[in-house]
Amino acid sequence: MAATTGDPGLSKLQFAPFSSALDVGFWHELTQKKLNEYRLDEAPKDIKGYYYNGDSAGLPARLTLEFSAFDMSAPTPARCCPAVGTLYNTNTLESFKTADKKLLLEQAANEIWESIKSGAALENPVLLNKFLLLTFADLKKYHFYYWFCYPALCLPESLPLIQGPVGLDQRFSLKQIQALECAYDNLCQTEGVTALPYFLIKYDENTVLVSLLKCYSDFFQGQRTKITIGVYDPCNLAQYPGWPLRNFLVLAAHRWSSSFQSVEVLCFRDRTMQGARDVAHSIIFEVKLPEMAFSPDCPKAVGWEKNQKGGMGPRMVNLSECMDPKRLAESSVDLNLKLMCWRLVPTLDLDKVVSVKCLLLGAGTLGCNVARTLMGWGVRHITFVDNAKISYSNPVRQPLYEFEDCLGGGKPKALAAADRLQKIFPGVNARGFNMSIPMPGHPVNFSSVTLEQARKDVEQLEQLIENHDVIFLLMDTRESRWLPAVIAASKRKLVINAALGFDTFVVMRHGLKKPKQQGAGDLYPNHPVASADLLGSSLFANIPGYKLGCYFCNDVVAPGDSTRDRTLDQQCTVSRPGLAMIAGALAVELMVSVLQHPEGGYAIASSSDDRMNEPPTSLGLVPHQIRGFLSRFDNVLPVSLAFDKCTACSSKAGLELLTSGSTCLGLPKFWDYRREPLCPANIFLLIASAVVNF
Amino acid sequence: MAATTGDPGLSKLQFAPFSSALDVGFWHELTQKKLNEYRLDEAPKDIKGYYYNGDSAGLPARLTLEFSAFDMSAPTPARCCPAVGTLYNTNTLESFKTADKKLLLEQAANEIWESIKSGAALENPVLLNKFLLLTFADLKKYHFYYWFCYPALCLPESLPLIQGPVGLDQRFSLKQIQALECAYDNLCQTEGVTALPYFLIKYDENTVLVSLLKCYSDFFQGQRTKITIGVYDPCNLAQYPGWPLRNFLVLAAHRWSSSFQSVEVLCFRDRTMQGARDVAHSIIFEVKLPEMAFSPDCPKAVGWEKNQKGGMGPRMVNLSECMDPKRLAESSVDLNLKLMCWRLVPTLDLDKVVSVKCLLLGAGTLGCNVARTLMGWGVRHITFVDNAKISYSNPVRQPLYEFEDCLGGGKPKALAAADRLQKIFPGVNARGFNMSIPMPGHPVNFSSVTLEQARKDVEQLEQLIENHDVIFLLMDTRESRWLPAVIAASKRKLVINAALGFDTFVVMRHGLKKPKQQGAGDLYPNHPVASADLLGSSLFANIPGYKLGCYFCNDVVAPGDSTRDRTLDQQCTVSRPGLAMIAGALAVELMVSVLQHPEGGYAIASSSDDRMNEPPTSLGLVPHQIRGFLSRFDNVLPVSLAFDKCTACSSKAGLELLTSGSTCLGLPKFWDYRREPLCPANIFLLIASAVVNF
Repeated sequence: MAATTGDPGLSKLQFAPFSSALDVGFWHELTQKKLNEYRLDEAPKDIKGYYYNGDSAGLPARLTLEFSAFDMSAPTPARCCPAVGTLYNTNTLESFKTADKKLLLEQAANEIWESIKSGAALENPVLLNKFLLLTFADLKKYHFYYWFCYPALCLPESLPLIQGPVGLDQRFSLKQIQALECAYDNLCQTEGVTALPYFLIKYDENTVLVSLLKCYSDFFQGQRTKITIGVYDPCNLAQYPGWPLRNFLVLAAHRWSSSFQSVEVLCFRDRTMQGARDVAHSIIFEVKLPEMAFSPDCPKAVGWEKNQKGGMGPRMVNLSECMDPKRLAESSVDLNLKLMCWRLVPTLDLDKVVSVKCLLLGAGTLGCNVARTLMGWGVRHITFVDNAKISYSNPVRQPLYEFEDCLGGGKPKALAAADRLQKIFPGVNARGFNMSIPMPGHPVNFSSVTLEQARKDVEQLEQLIENHDVIFLLMDTRESRWLPAVIAASKRKLVINAALGFDTFVVMRHGLKKPKQQGAGDLYPNHPVASADLLGSSLFANIPGYKLGCYFCNDVVAPGDSTRDRTLDQQCTVSRPGLAMIAGALAVELMVSVLQHPEGGYAIASSSDDRMNEPPTSLGLVPHQIRGFLSRFDNVLPVSLAFDKCTACSSKAGLELLTSGSTCLGLPKFWDYRREPLCPANIFLLIASAVVNF
Repeated sequence: MAATTGDPGLSKLQFAPFSSALDVGFWHELTQKKLNEYRLDEAPKDIKGYYYNGDSAGLPARLTLEFSAFDMSAPTPARCCPAVGTLYNTNTLESFKTADKKLLLEQAANEIWESIKSGAALENPVLLNKFLLLTFADLKKYHFYYWFCYPALCLPESLPLIQGPVGLDQRFSLKQIQALECAYDNLCQTEGVTALPYFLIKYDENTVLVSLLKCYSDFFQGQRTKITIGVYDPCNLAQYPGWPLRNFLVLAAHRWSSSFQSVEVLCFRDRTMQGARDVAHSIIFEVKLPEMAFSPDCPKAVGWEKNQKGGMGPRMVNLSECMDPKRLAESSVDLNLKLMCWRLVPTLDLDKVVSVKCLLLGAGTLGCNVARTLMGWGVRHITFVDNAKISYSNPVRQPLYEFEDCLGGGKPKALAAADRLQKIFPGVNARGFNMSIPMPGHPVNFSSVTLEQARKDVEQLEQLIENHDVIFLLMDTRESRWLPAVIAASKRKLVINAALGFDTFVVMRHGLKKPKQQGAGDLYPNHPVASADLLGSSLFANIPGYKLGCYFCNDVVAPGDSTRDRTLDQQCTVSRPGLAMIAGALAVELMVSVLQHPEGGYAIASSSDDRMNEPPTSLGLVPHQIRGFLSRFDNVLPVSLAFDKCTACSSKAGLELLTSGSTCLGLPKFWDYRREPLCPANIFLLIASAVVNF
């Protein structure tokens, strides 16, 4: 209970303060606003709350803020009065603590006072319902610090009670009570609101009339010594009115104390009990109005809420404990990403990254590291393809596996990798396909691999590539990269390729062929095919994405079986342990940079020479290749042109020659090219079954 | 049963072939030899096996190879005959398959033949016991492919049985049997062996004499038509002799068929039955000797072992199933490392890396990635220090944690990280310390941190640094790096420091101060303090390790509290997700390169300019700093000198000024420097409690 001071004698009117009721939805919405809109902006924000006056006895008067608090045009819930507030959300706990709360309160009080003096509060009484909310949202821990204030202007002296408070049913007859209900409801209906916070009342034994504050003069015309005012009262206590009355009494004192010495106050309480409406528990009393008509200065104000311990201090709510851990994980991951946008890279288009569907061909050292980096970037759709099982030497270098995964012959890598991603972050959509990637030079009629199985594998691979946006080639053999490169080229998918030596690596994006036909459905409608054509490409500068080479372009031999006849050190693709982490991370960072470029995979390739120039994206360069040399801790950014007879990506020597079934390729005669559709699956079988060297 | 051919009529002598018995110990030893000695060497190797003749009935005759097979001077087990073999261990499965087995057999047969013709086999009958072993060890899978051959020269025709075979007890009296046992044992004893593979026998009703082959002339002097020879027979079968007899019969035919038409063969079998010696189950028979005295050409030979299916083909043993998985994991991890040495970096000193004890201060994004890379390098001793708990945003960027680790407020990072390393590789010795690193600028009398706790933390940190070889500074604040840098500098420990920006990083080794006193116990006795001193260092070239700066050297302000008053994006140390992986990997690779340098941390720093020069280690450069710029995919290698008034590493402004307790540092007066020992713990408390700006 906050008491006003002064004037001993008559008992003094006291007011029940509001309890702030900040809903989980409010904090959630604040989190979103902070992340996506306010970011580092600390400027005051308009927010909106409401209070209800129909609670059962025992509940404190509450000012509620929920998810809708940030939408000033959101409707107020039925039978609730709106309150308008100002949110001061600080960037740091430090500035939360050091905020000048006295000043904030004075500013708010002054606005209320001005609205009283100017009459604006008569026109719009909601101006009296003002609140402040000072917050700091620690979004890493989901701890929300806040301090709520409902400024109440203080009357120059305490208000002696002349009469009451008593229950309305002790003063009004049943008829009068019903007339009050009826009159109030009608006024609300006329005004198009479900509740009026403040109103005027006139009554006699037979009738009860209510009116708006702004109609004061007409309504009370001829009235003497006493007027009756109504307040929509959120308080339940039989002896005390709630907080909203305070500013209303100041308004009454300022505007009407020259005419009246006292005011009768009806604290209108309107609840439903056992199915029946009940306003009889409203209270009514009469207080002496102090003389305030000519005071020009804003009275002092109170209103900062006490904390749970009853002291003057902020409150903290720890939402991490009451949130679904999985959603909490998702929000936390989002947070880390959005933080990048706030100050560092405001133009970063995170959606382009987060929404990309990635197919990882290979779930070994490179695949594991690429997947981890994709997770760090918030990519939610990750698919693995691998046919190997986890062996004992893998976990120390392949960061999605553990010792237990090796037992019993080892789990299939692709499946185990997908499982692990779920364990790391339940929000990820990860799948694994335990399948072989058909390879030229590895005859399909060898051992247990049948032609039929190879055909199925090709079709599955084709489907997988179709269903993803970015294809990562992360295998440990040259030749296994070939078929995916061909299919991805034909489908115009962005290909990111990474390959390791002992202490060297190459990370590259494949050139992205011009779309077969321009128009709707293009992934990158802005790509400058026409203009770039004019540039020419005799120098290795300004080479647009569609002229860039693929992994096979500098390579005139066909992919053969590189696993045969390799010694153990060659088979293990022995490399310095740090190399795969570096190459895997760079492969993803290259993808992200390319995605940030407005032309995506068609972007002109950056070279080492561009390092001193203005970068083409907010994240920097979009090279064609990154070749790294760990022994020198050095990277270079070569650019190379597509080879027009490339066995993988050229339309001439690649797809077209193959689909034409030219016998110059040594294709077997048994294949009837005219009867079978010439999809990559068929093309590949031709090659695979013939072990063609083309 | 392998039958000889020709001469129908009398029943033919057949021989029970050897079963190869390749012990797990043999494969283990082969693995070690391959990894550490043979590497890519495919040259034939001498190995040694043995066979036993005391088996119970039902066991096949076995030629056993165990761990001792590679030690030609290893003793033959008691009551076993040695066999000498040649190991052909191929580097690839392909060359295993394509090995010319016919040629190998012919070569071995020829050697046997030559030893018969020259008489060498008479002097040393073990020359008849020759075997071949063709192997391919797939050490990634612990699959061992092998094909065993015990070459047997073929007689020109099959050997007709003139008499027998019958049990020795049907031919010899008990007295004769005892005399045989006695004579054989005496001869072994005289020769200093526990078993003789081949010997000569002469007997009558009362006596049995045995002699060595080389004594043939004297022993059989006066003998007519028939001689008796003895063979130490690994075979158990009542009707058939074992394989060793074959070459012995060829020897007999070649050398003695001009004198004798037939030979009586005693297949000496010598077992212990129910505690009693038993040779009575030996068999004896007589065969016609073919005329081979004058044939100069090596007879054809047989001997490649059939596989489990009974066909001519190699066998495979999969030891991964019968090995202790944890040891298997250890071997597999070792393998991957040793593979690096074989061809790529033969001079790599792996022990220096594997045995290093690493202290990781910080178990966040950098700490996790550093630990993973250390695991890849085979480092077995890793200790984490961190005081944070795992939050929901961590697992996608900190690759030692999963979603479950975040529940219930989050596990302490240091402990969870150590647990995870054990799960990845049970052979690691990982520990975690959930403790704070006392920081200047963070007053120790603040909140719950007491002076006493800070003192304990300092002492523990000091002890940890003392007990490790390399100290990684991987924290997310500047000031937390200070105290470890001071302590590590005073203890002359190699410090590797990594720090991240948004898309930039620095990875550096701190300069390593000259040892306090030269001499025994120096970590790097070769470091060229004296000579490097002469070089001067006015240019940033040829700066020796002891003159290099630390993280704080370019920094004149004291470390303050950088976590206070930071906005969320600053607190999160927001960086591009790939950055920590790259920096973490480079931090370890830098450590490894430094360890490979003969002068270790005292090595002259490589700079960007050295990239074209001959590198100082087998792994390349040993820079002072690697500064990376992800937006340009570029690294530079700056070198900077130690600042002689550095707040962390200088002896003047750092340790000495502090330990002198100079009041110019604003140290509190209450500390009695003369009474308390001036260990870093005390020094630090001075600073921490005073929040000194020095």
